[in-house]
Amino acid sequence: MQSESMRPFVHVNVAMSADGKISTRERRQVRISGPADFSRVDRIKAECDAVMVGIGTVLADDPSLTVKSPELRAMRIARGMPEHPVRIVVDSRARTPPGASILHKGDGSRIIACSEQADPANVAELGRHATVLVAGRDRVDLARLFSLLYDQGIRKVMVEGGGTLIAALFVEGLVDELTCYVGNMIIGGRDAPTLADGPGLVAPETLVRLSLSRAEPLDEGVLLSWRVHREQ
Amino acid sequence: MQSESMRPFVHVNVAMSADGKISTRERRQVRISGPADFSRVDRIKAECDAVMVGIGTVLADDPSLTVKSPELRAMRIARGMPEHPVRIVVDSRARTPPGASILHKGDGSRIIACSEQADPANVAELGRHATVLVAGRDRVDLARLFSLLYDQGIRKVMVEGGGTLIAALFVEGLVDELTCYVGNMIIGGRDAPTLADGPGLVAPETLVRLSLSRAEPLDEGVLLSWRVHREQ
Repeated sequence: MQSESMRPFVHVNVAMSADGKISTRERRQVRISGPADFSRVDRIKAECDAVMVGIGTVLADDPSLTVKSPELRAMRIARGMPEHPVRIVVDSRARTPPGASILHKGDGSRIIACSEQADPANVAELGRHATVLVAGRDRVDLARLFSLLYDQGIRKVMVEGGGTLIAALFVEGLVDELTCYVGNMIIGGRDAPTLADGPGLVAPETLVRLSLSRAEPLDEGVLLSWRVHREQ
Repeated sequence: MQSESMRPFVHVNVAMSADGKISTRERRQVRISGPADFSRVDRIKAECDAVMVGIGTVLADDPSLTVKSPELRAMRIARGMPEHPVRIVVDSRARTPPGASILHKGDGSRIIACSEQADPANVAELGRHATVLVAGRDRVDLARLFSLLYDQGIRKVMVEGGGTLIAALFVEGLVDELTCYVGNMIIGGRDAPTLADGPGLVAPETLVRLSLSRAEPLDEGVLLSWRVHREQ
Protein backbone atom coordinates (compact mmCIF):
# COMPACT_ATOMS: atom_id res chain seq x y z
CA MET A 1 0.00 0.00 0.00
CA GLN A 2 1.41 3.39 -0.93
CA SER A 3 1.88 6.02 1.71
CA GLU A 4 -0.55 8.42 0.06
CA SER A 5 -3.41 5.90 0.38
CA MET A 6 -2.91 5.43 4.13
CA ARG A 7 -5.68 7.00 6.15
CA PRO A 8 -7.01 6.92 9.71
CA PHE A 9 -9.78 4.58 10.85
CA VAL A 10 -13.00 6.58 10.42
CA HIS A 11 -15.89 6.09 12.83
CA VAL A 12 -19.09 8.00 12.09
CA ASN A 13 -21.25 8.47 15.18
CA VAL A 14 -24.64 10.10 14.93
CA ALA A 15 -28.01 10.24 16.63
CA MET A 16 -31.17 10.28 14.55
CA SER A 17 -34.89 10.16 15.24
CA ALA A 18 -36.90 7.01 14.52
CA ASP A 19 -37.63 8.52 11.09
CA GLY A 20 -33.98 9.22 10.28
CA LYS A 21 -33.69 12.96 11.03
CA ILE A 22 -30.74 14.51 12.87
CA SER A 23 -32.53 17.83 13.56
CA THR A 24 -35.67 19.71 12.55
CA ARG A 25 -36.01 21.32 9.14
CA GLU A 26 -34.91 24.62 10.70
CA ARG A 27 -31.81 22.80 12.02
CA ARG A 28 -32.97 23.24 15.58
CA GLN A 29 -31.12 20.74 17.72
CA VAL A 30 -33.27 18.05 19.28
CA ARG A 31 -32.15 16.01 22.27
CA ILE A 32 -32.38 12.65 20.54
CA SER A 33 -30.49 10.43 22.98
CA GLY A 34 -30.06 10.32 26.75
CA PRO A 35 -27.38 10.19 29.45
CA ALA A 36 -26.16 6.64 28.72
CA ASP A 37 -25.62 7.52 25.07
CA PHE A 38 -23.98 10.80 26.04
CA SER A 39 -21.41 8.86 28.13
CA ARG A 40 -20.89 6.36 25.34
CA VAL A 41 -20.13 9.12 22.83
CA ASP A 42 -17.78 10.81 25.29
CA ARG A 43 -15.89 7.52 25.68
CA ILE A 44 -15.54 7.06 21.92
CA LYS A 45 -14.34 10.64 21.60
CA ALA A 46 -11.77 10.06 24.35
CA GLU A 47 -10.36 7.10 22.40
CA CYS A 48 -9.89 9.09 19.20
CA ASP A 49 -7.03 11.19 17.94
CA ALA A 50 -9.40 13.63 16.26
CA VAL A 51 -13.06 14.58 16.06
CA MET A 52 -14.41 15.95 12.78
CA VAL A 53 -17.52 17.90 11.75
CA GLY A 54 -18.67 19.74 8.66
CA ILE A 55 -19.07 23.51 8.50
CA GLY A 56 -22.88 23.20 8.47
CA THR A 57 -22.78 21.64 11.92
CA VAL A 58 -20.46 24.37 13.22
CA LEU A 59 -22.79 27.08 11.92
CA ALA A 60 -25.97 25.37 13.19
CA ASP A 61 -24.87 23.97 16.55
CA ASP A 62 -21.56 25.64 17.51
CA PRO A 63 -20.19 22.47 19.17
CA SER A 64 -16.93 22.44 21.13
CA LEU A 65 -16.27 18.71 20.56
CA THR A 66 -14.28 18.46 23.77
CA VAL A 67 -14.20 15.38 25.99
CA LYS A 68 -16.67 16.15 28.77
CA SER A 69 -15.72 13.63 31.49
CA PRO A 70 -12.83 14.77 33.76
CA GLU A 71 -11.93 11.08 34.27
CA LEU A 72 -11.61 10.48 30.53
CA ARG A 73 -9.55 13.64 30.11
CA ALA A 74 -7.27 12.46 32.94
CA MET A 75 -7.02 9.06 31.26
CA ARG A 76 -5.89 10.69 28.02
CA ILE A 77 -3.24 12.73 29.81
CA ALA A 78 -2.04 9.64 31.70
CA ARG A 79 -1.61 7.93 28.35
CA GLY A 80 0.47 10.80 27.03
CA MET A 81 -2.32 12.06 24.76
CA PRO A 82 -3.53 15.65 24.60
CA GLU A 83 -6.47 16.35 26.93
CA HIS A 84 -8.86 16.63 23.98
CA PRO A 85 -8.74 15.12 20.49
CA VAL A 86 -7.71 17.37 17.63
CA ARG A 87 -10.84 19.13 16.47
CA ILE A 88 -11.28 19.29 12.69
CA VAL A 89 -13.75 21.29 10.62
CA VAL A 90 -14.29 20.40 6.96
CA ASP A 91 -14.94 23.88 5.67
CA SER A 92 -14.27 24.30 1.94
CA ARG A 93 -14.69 28.08 1.97
CA ALA A 94 -13.23 28.79 5.43
CA ARG A 95 -16.51 30.11 6.81
CA THR A 96 -15.91 28.97 10.40
CA PRO A 97 -16.69 32.01 12.57
CA PRO A 98 -13.52 33.17 14.36
CA GLY A 99 -15.49 33.09 17.62
CA ALA A 100 -16.76 29.50 17.15
CA SER A 101 -16.61 27.34 20.30
CA ILE A 102 -14.62 24.70 18.47
CA LEU A 103 -11.73 27.20 18.16
CA HIS A 104 -11.76 28.29 21.79
CA LYS A 105 -13.23 25.77 24.23
CA GLY A 106 -10.72 23.36 25.77
CA ASP A 107 -7.00 23.10 25.22
CA GLY A 108 -5.50 21.42 22.21
CA SER A 109 -5.12 21.79 18.51
CA ARG A 110 -7.62 22.53 15.79
CA ILE A 111 -7.53 21.98 12.05
CA ILE A 112 -9.61 23.84 9.50
CA ALA A 113 -9.64 21.89 6.24
CA CYS A 114 -10.47 24.14 3.32
CA SER A 115 -10.18 24.21 -0.46
CA GLU A 116 -8.26 26.55 -2.75
CA GLN A 117 -11.48 28.57 -3.12
CA ALA A 118 -11.38 29.73 0.49
CA ASP A 119 -11.17 33.46 1.03
CA PRO A 120 -7.54 34.34 1.93
CA ALA A 121 -8.64 36.84 4.56
CA ASN A 122 -10.74 34.16 6.28
CA VAL A 123 -7.86 31.72 6.05
CA ALA A 124 -5.48 34.24 7.63
CA GLU A 125 -7.92 34.97 10.43
CA LEU A 126 -8.61 31.28 11.14
CA GLY A 127 -4.86 30.63 11.05
CA ARG A 128 -4.59 32.51 14.33
CA HIS A 129 -6.64 29.81 16.09
CA ALA A 130 -6.09 26.66 14.02
CA THR A 131 -3.87 24.90 11.55
CA VAL A 132 -5.37 25.52 8.13
CA LEU A 133 -4.94 22.63 5.69
CA VAL A 134 -5.70 23.24 2.04
CA ALA A 135 -6.81 20.08 0.19
CA GLY A 136 -8.82 20.25 -3.00
CA ARG A 137 -9.65 22.93 -5.54
CA ASP A 138 -13.35 23.77 -5.16
CA ARG A 139 -14.22 21.64 -2.19
CA VAL A 140 -12.22 19.68 0.33
CA ASP A 141 -10.68 16.54 -1.17
CA LEU A 142 -11.55 14.21 1.70
CA ALA A 143 -9.24 11.36 0.71
CA ARG A 144 -6.35 13.80 0.44
CA LEU A 145 -7.29 15.35 3.78
CA PHE A 146 -7.28 11.96 5.51
CA SER A 147 -3.90 11.21 4.00
CA LEU A 148 -2.56 14.50 5.39
CA LEU A 149 -4.08 13.70 8.79
CA TYR A 150 -2.47 10.26 8.75
CA ASP A 151 0.89 11.89 8.03
CA GLN A 152 0.37 13.99 11.15
CA GLY A 153 -0.02 10.84 13.24
CA ILE A 154 -3.82 10.79 13.39
CA ARG A 155 -4.92 7.16 13.36
CA LYS A 156 -8.54 7.27 14.53
CA VAL A 157 -11.11 9.92 13.66
CA MET A 158 -14.65 10.21 14.95
CA VAL A 159 -17.03 12.06 12.65
CA GLU A 160 -19.99 13.71 14.38
CA GLY A 161 -21.83 15.12 11.35
CA GLY A 162 -23.55 16.63 9.66
CA GLY A 163 -25.38 14.79 6.93
CA THR A 164 -23.58 16.43 4.03
CA LEU A 165 -20.10 15.49 5.27
CA ILE A 166 -21.20 11.98 6.28
CA ALA A 167 -22.79 11.32 2.89
CA ALA A 168 -19.63 12.46 1.09
CA LEU A 169 -17.49 10.19 3.28
CA PHE A 170 -19.69 7.18 2.52
CA VAL A 171 -19.78 7.90 -1.21
CA GLU A 172 -15.98 8.17 -1.29
CA GLY A 173 -15.50 4.92 0.64
CA LEU A 174 -13.89 6.62 3.61
CA VAL A 175 -16.01 5.20 6.46
CA ASP A 176 -15.08 2.08 8.48
CA GLU A 177 -17.70 2.06 11.21
CA LEU A 178 -21.08 3.67 11.80
CA THR A 179 -22.80 3.87 15.16
CA CYS A 180 -26.25 5.31 14.97
CA TYR A 181 -28.38 6.00 17.99
CA VAL A 182 -32.06 5.81 17.01
CA GLY A 183 -34.15 7.98 19.32
CA ASN A 184 -37.77 7.54 20.37
CA MET A 185 -39.35 10.36 18.42
CA ILE A 186 -40.65 11.30 14.99
CA ILE A 187 -39.34 14.63 13.68
CA GLY A 188 -40.60 14.41 10.11
CA GLY A 189 -40.06 16.84 7.26
CA ARG A 190 -38.82 16.34 3.74
CA ASP A 191 -36.32 19.16 4.30
CA ALA A 192 -35.06 18.08 7.73
CA PRO A 193 -31.38 17.05 7.75
CA THR A 194 -30.71 13.31 7.74
CA LEU A 195 -27.74 11.12 8.56
CA ALA A 196 -26.63 11.13 4.92
CA ASP A 197 -27.74 14.05 2.74
CA GLY A 198 -25.91 15.46 -0.28
CA PRO A 199 -26.94 14.30 -3.74
CA GLY A 200 -27.20 10.67 -2.56
CA LEU A 201 -26.82 7.45 -4.45
CA VAL A 202 -29.14 6.69 -7.30
CA ALA A 203 -28.44 3.26 -8.73
CA PRO A 204 -29.42 0.49 -6.31
CA GLU A 205 -26.26 -1.45 -7.25
CA THR A 206 -24.00 1.39 -6.06
CA LEU A 207 -25.42 1.71 -2.55
CA VAL A 208 -22.97 1.50 0.31
CA ARG A 209 -23.42 -1.87 2.07
CA LEU A 210 -23.09 -2.37 5.80
CA SER A 211 -22.92 -5.29 8.24
CA LEU A 212 -24.86 -5.04 11.48
CA SER A 213 -22.58 -5.78 14.39
CA ARG A 214 -24.91 -4.88 17.26
CA ALA A 215 -28.39 -3.61 18.12
CA GLU A 216 -28.91 -2.75 21.76
CA PRO A 217 -31.58 -0.74 23.57
CA LEU A 218 -30.03 2.31 25.27
CA ASP A 219 -31.80 5.11 27.13
CA GLU A 220 -35.22 5.36 25.44
CA GLY A 221 -33.95 4.32 22.04
CA VAL A 222 -31.62 1.80 20.43
CA LEU A 223 -27.99 1.88 19.39
CA LEU A 224 -27.18 0.33 16.01
CA SER A 225 -23.56 -0.50 15.20
CA TRP A 226 -22.56 -1.17 11.61
CA ARG A 227 -19.34 -2.02 9.82
CA VAL A 228 -18.84 -0.89 6.25
CA HIS A 229 -18.35 -3.69 3.74
CA ARG A 230 -14.75 -3.79 2.65
CA GLU A 231 -15.46 -4.28 -1.04
CA GLN A 232 -17.05 -0.85 -1.22
CA MET B 1 -66.33 8.09 23.49
CA GLN B 2 -68.49 9.36 20.65
CA SER B 3 -68.99 7.27 17.58
CA GLU B 4 -67.34 9.82 15.30
CA SER B 5 -64.08 9.61 17.25
CA MET B 6 -63.83 5.82 16.95
CA ARG B 7 -61.12 4.73 14.56
CA PRO B 8 -59.25 1.55 13.64
CA PHE B 9 -55.91 0.56 15.22
CA VAL B 10 -53.26 1.98 12.88
CA HIS B 11 -50.00 0.12 12.36
CA VAL B 12 -47.38 1.81 10.19
CA ASN B 13 -44.90 -0.64 8.71
CA VAL B 14 -41.98 0.56 6.67
CA ALA B 15 -38.46 -0.40 5.62
CA MET B 16 -35.75 2.23 5.55
CA SER B 17 -32.01 2.27 4.93
CA ALA B 18 -29.56 2.76 7.81
CA ASP B 19 -29.71 6.49 6.99
CA GLY B 20 -33.50 6.68 7.07
CA LYS B 21 -34.37 6.61 3.36
CA ILE B 22 -37.24 4.57 1.90
CA SER B 23 -36.05 4.87 -1.71
CA THR B 24 -33.54 6.81 -3.79
CA ARG B 25 -34.08 10.47 -4.64
CA GLU B 26 -35.53 9.36 -7.98
CA ARG B 27 -37.97 7.16 -6.03
CA ARG B 28 -36.36 4.05 -7.42
CA GLN B 29 -37.33 1.16 -5.21
CA VAL B 30 -34.48 -0.45 -3.31
CA ARG B 31 -34.69 -3.93 -1.82
CA ILE B 32 -34.08 -2.85 1.75
CA SER B 33 -35.11 -5.98 3.65
CA GLY B 34 -34.91 -9.73 2.99
CA PRO B 35 -37.06 -12.88 2.95
CA ALA B 36 -37.66 -13.07 6.70
CA ASP B 37 -38.93 -9.51 6.76
CA PHE B 38 -41.00 -10.15 3.64
CA SER B 39 -42.78 -13.01 5.45
CA ARG B 40 -43.23 -10.89 8.56
CA VAL B 41 -44.90 -8.11 6.56
CA ASP B 42 -47.13 -10.62 4.77
CA ARG B 43 -48.26 -11.97 8.17
CA ILE B 44 -49.10 -8.52 9.49
CA LYS B 45 -51.00 -7.76 6.31
CA ALA B 46 -52.94 -11.01 6.66
CA GLU B 47 -54.04 -9.99 10.16
CA CYS B 48 -55.38 -6.61 9.02
CA ASP B 49 -58.75 -5.56 7.71
CA ALA B 50 -57.20 -3.02 5.38
CA VAL B 51 -53.86 -1.94 3.93
CA MET B 52 -53.34 1.73 3.11
CA VAL B 53 -50.87 3.70 0.98
CA GLY B 54 -50.61 7.26 -0.30
CA ILE B 55 -50.97 8.19 -3.95
CA GLY B 56 -47.23 8.90 -4.24
CA THR B 57 -46.48 5.25 -3.49
CA VAL B 58 -49.06 4.07 -6.03
CA LEU B 59 -47.53 6.29 -8.72
CA ALA B 60 -43.92 5.35 -7.86
CA ASP B 61 -44.17 1.64 -7.08
CA ASP B 62 -47.56 0.40 -8.38
CA PRO B 63 -48.01 -2.08 -5.48
CA SER B 64 -50.86 -4.59 -5.37
CA LEU B 65 -50.87 -4.86 -1.53
CA THR B 66 -52.23 -8.39 -1.69
CA VAL B 67 -51.37 -11.14 0.79
CA LYS B 68 -48.68 -13.19 -0.94
CA SER B 69 -48.70 -16.45 1.03
CA PRO B 70 -51.36 -18.98 -0.10
CA GLU B 71 -51.43 -20.34 3.48
CA LEU B 72 -52.19 -16.93 4.92
CA ARG B 73 -54.88 -16.31 2.31
CA ALA B 74 -56.43 -19.71 3.18
CA MET B 75 -56.26 -18.77 6.86
CA ARG B 76 -58.17 -15.58 6.18
CA ILE B 77 -60.85 -17.43 4.24
CA ALA B 78 -61.14 -20.07 6.98
CA ARG B 79 -61.75 -17.24 9.43
CA GLY B 80 -64.52 -15.83 7.28
CA MET B 81 -62.42 -12.88 6.14
CA PRO B 82 -61.97 -11.81 2.53
CA GLU B 83 -58.90 -13.36 0.86
CA HIS B 84 -57.09 -9.99 0.87
CA PRO B 85 -57.46 -6.95 3.11
CA VAL B 86 -59.34 -3.96 1.73
CA ARG B 87 -56.83 -1.89 -0.19
CA ILE B 88 -57.04 1.84 0.41
CA VAL B 89 -55.35 4.70 -1.44
CA VAL B 90 -55.24 8.16 0.13
CA ASP B 91 -55.49 10.17 -3.04
CA SER B 92 -56.82 13.72 -2.52
CA ARG B 93 -57.14 14.50 -6.23
CA ALA B 94 -58.14 11.02 -7.45
CA ARG B 95 -55.01 10.57 -9.55
CA THR B 96 -54.78 6.78 -9.13
CA PRO B 97 -54.27 5.40 -12.66
CA PRO B 98 -57.30 3.29 -13.68
CA GLY B 99 -54.87 0.52 -14.62
CA ALA B 100 -53.02 0.54 -11.27
CA SER B 101 -52.25 -2.92 -9.85
CA ILE B 102 -53.96 -2.06 -6.60
CA LEU B 103 -57.28 -1.84 -8.48
CA HIS B 104 -56.89 -5.12 -10.34
CA LYS B 105 -54.60 -7.66 -8.68
CA GLY B 106 -56.32 -10.08 -6.30
CA ASP B 107 -59.97 -10.33 -5.35
CA GLY B 108 -61.56 -8.04 -2.82
CA SER B 109 -62.56 -4.48 -2.31
CA ARG B 110 -60.71 -1.23 -2.81
CA ILE B 111 -61.28 2.23 -1.45
CA ILE B 112 -60.02 5.44 -3.00
CA ALA B 113 -60.15 8.22 -0.43
CA CYS B 114 -60.23 11.62 -2.07
CA SER B 115 -61.12 15.22 -1.27
CA GLU B 116 -63.80 17.48 -2.71
CA GLN B 117 -61.13 18.84 -5.08
CA ALA B 118 -60.87 15.57 -6.98
CA ASP B 119 -61.72 15.72 -10.66
CA PRO B 120 -65.27 14.33 -11.11
CA ALA B 121 -64.27 12.46 -14.29
CA ASN B 122 -61.45 10.71 -12.42
CA VAL B 123 -63.80 9.91 -9.55
CA ALA B 124 -66.34 8.41 -11.94
CA GLU B 125 -63.68 6.31 -13.66
CA LEU B 126 -62.19 5.07 -10.37
CA GLY B 127 -65.70 4.31 -9.13
CA ARG B 128 -65.82 1.46 -11.63
CA HIS B 129 -63.04 -0.34 -9.74
CA ALA B 130 -63.28 0.95 -6.18
CA THR B 131 -65.47 2.57 -3.58
CA VAL B 132 -64.69 6.27 -3.65
CA LEU B 133 -64.93 7.97 -0.26
CA VAL B 134 -64.89 11.76 -0.17
CA ALA B 135 -63.50 13.14 3.10
CA GLY B 136 -62.11 16.65 3.33
CA ARG B 137 -62.20 19.76 1.17
CA ASP B 138 -58.73 20.25 -0.30
CA ARG B 139 -57.00 17.18 0.98
CA VAL B 140 -58.16 14.00 2.61
CA ASP B 141 -59.28 14.54 6.20
CA LEU B 142 -57.54 11.51 7.68
CA ALA B 143 -59.37 11.48 11.01
CA ARG B 144 -62.69 11.64 9.16
CA LEU B 145 -61.55 8.90 6.79
CA PHE B 146 -60.63 6.59 9.67
CA SER B 147 -64.00 7.25 11.26
CA LEU B 148 -65.71 6.26 7.99
CA LEU B 149 -63.54 3.13 7.78
CA TYR B 150 -64.46 2.21 11.34
CA ASP B 151 -68.12 2.56 10.46
CA GLN B 152 -67.53 0.04 7.66
CA GLY B 153 -66.22 -2.50 10.18
CA ILE B 154 -62.51 -1.90 9.61
CA ARG B 155 -60.73 -2.32 12.95
CA LYS B 156 -57.07 -2.73 12.02
CA VAL B 157 -55.23 -0.89 9.26
CA MET B 158 -51.67 -1.40 8.13
CA VAL B 159 -50.07 1.64 6.47
CA GLU B 160 -47.25 0.85 4.04
CA GLY B 161 -46.23 4.41 3.06
CA GLY B 162 -45.14 6.66 1.71
CA GLY B 163 -43.43 9.28 3.80
CA THR B 164 -45.96 12.04 3.14
CA LEU B 165 -48.93 9.97 4.32
CA ILE B 166 -47.03 8.56 7.30
CA ALA B 167 -45.90 12.02 8.44
CA ALA B 168 -49.46 13.35 8.22
CA LEU B 169 -50.75 10.40 10.27
CA PHE B 170 -48.16 10.99 12.98
CA VAL B 171 -48.81 14.73 13.10
CA GLU B 172 -52.54 14.12 13.45
CA GLY B 173 -52.08 11.56 16.24
CA LEU B 174 -53.48 8.70 14.18
CA VAL B 175 -50.72 6.10 14.61
CA ASP B 176 -50.70 3.40 17.30
CA GLU B 177 -47.72 1.28 16.33
CA LEU B 178 -44.66 1.65 14.11
CA THR B 179 -42.52 -1.21 12.90
CA CYS B 180 -39.47 -0.07 11.02
CA TYR B 181 -37.06 -2.43 9.34
CA VAL B 182 -33.63 -0.80 9.17
CA GLY B 183 -31.66 -2.20 6.24
CA ASN B 184 -27.91 -2.61 5.87
CA MET B 185 -27.22 0.13 3.34
CA ILE B 186 -26.70 3.85 2.98
CA ILE B 187 -28.82 5.48 0.27
CA GLY B 188 -28.13 9.12 1.08
CA GLY B 189 -29.56 12.21 -0.56
CA ARG B 190 -31.21 15.27 0.90
CA ASP B 191 -34.09 14.77 -1.56
CA ALA B 192 -34.57 11.02 -1.07
CA PRO B 193 -37.93 10.10 0.50
CA THR B 194 -37.84 9.27 4.21
CA LEU B 195 -40.16 7.48 6.61
CA ALA B 196 -41.82 10.78 7.56
CA ASP B 197 -41.66 13.64 5.06
CA GLY B 198 -44.19 16.45 4.68
CA PRO B 199 -43.49 19.77 6.37
CA GLY B 200 -42.35 18.00 9.56
CA LEU B 201 -42.41 19.15 13.13
CA VAL B 202 -40.44 22.19 14.14
CA ALA B 203 -40.69 22.80 17.87
CA PRO B 204 -38.84 20.13 19.86
CA GLU B 205 -41.68 20.04 22.41
CA THR B 206 -44.23 19.02 19.76
CA LEU B 207 -42.36 15.97 18.47
CA VAL B 208 -44.25 12.69 18.42
CA ARG B 209 -42.88 10.46 21.21
CA LEU B 210 -42.50 6.69 20.92
CA SER B 211 -41.71 3.77 23.23
CA LEU B 212 -39.37 1.08 21.97
CA SER B 213 -40.98 -2.31 22.39
CA ARG B 214 -38.43 -4.45 20.53
CA ALA B 215 -35.18 -4.36 18.58
CA GLU B 216 -34.27 -7.61 16.85
CA PRO B 217 -31.79 -8.44 14.10
CA LEU B 218 -33.62 -9.81 11.03
CA ASP B 219 -32.15 -10.73 7.65
CA GLU B 220 -29.15 -8.40 7.24
CA GLY B 221 -30.73 -5.55 9.21
CA VAL B 222 -32.74 -4.94 12.33
CA LEU B 223 -36.43 -4.62 13.08
CA LEU B 224 -37.46 -1.82 15.44
CA SER B 225 -40.93 -1.91 16.98
CA TRP B 226 -42.33 1.23 18.58
CA ARG B 227 -45.58 2.16 20.28
CA VAL B 228 -46.83 5.71 20.07
CA HIS B 229 -47.16 7.51 23.38
CA ARG B 230 -50.81 7.82 24.29
CA GLU B 231 -50.65 11.43 25.47
CA GLN B 232 -49.75 12.55 21.97
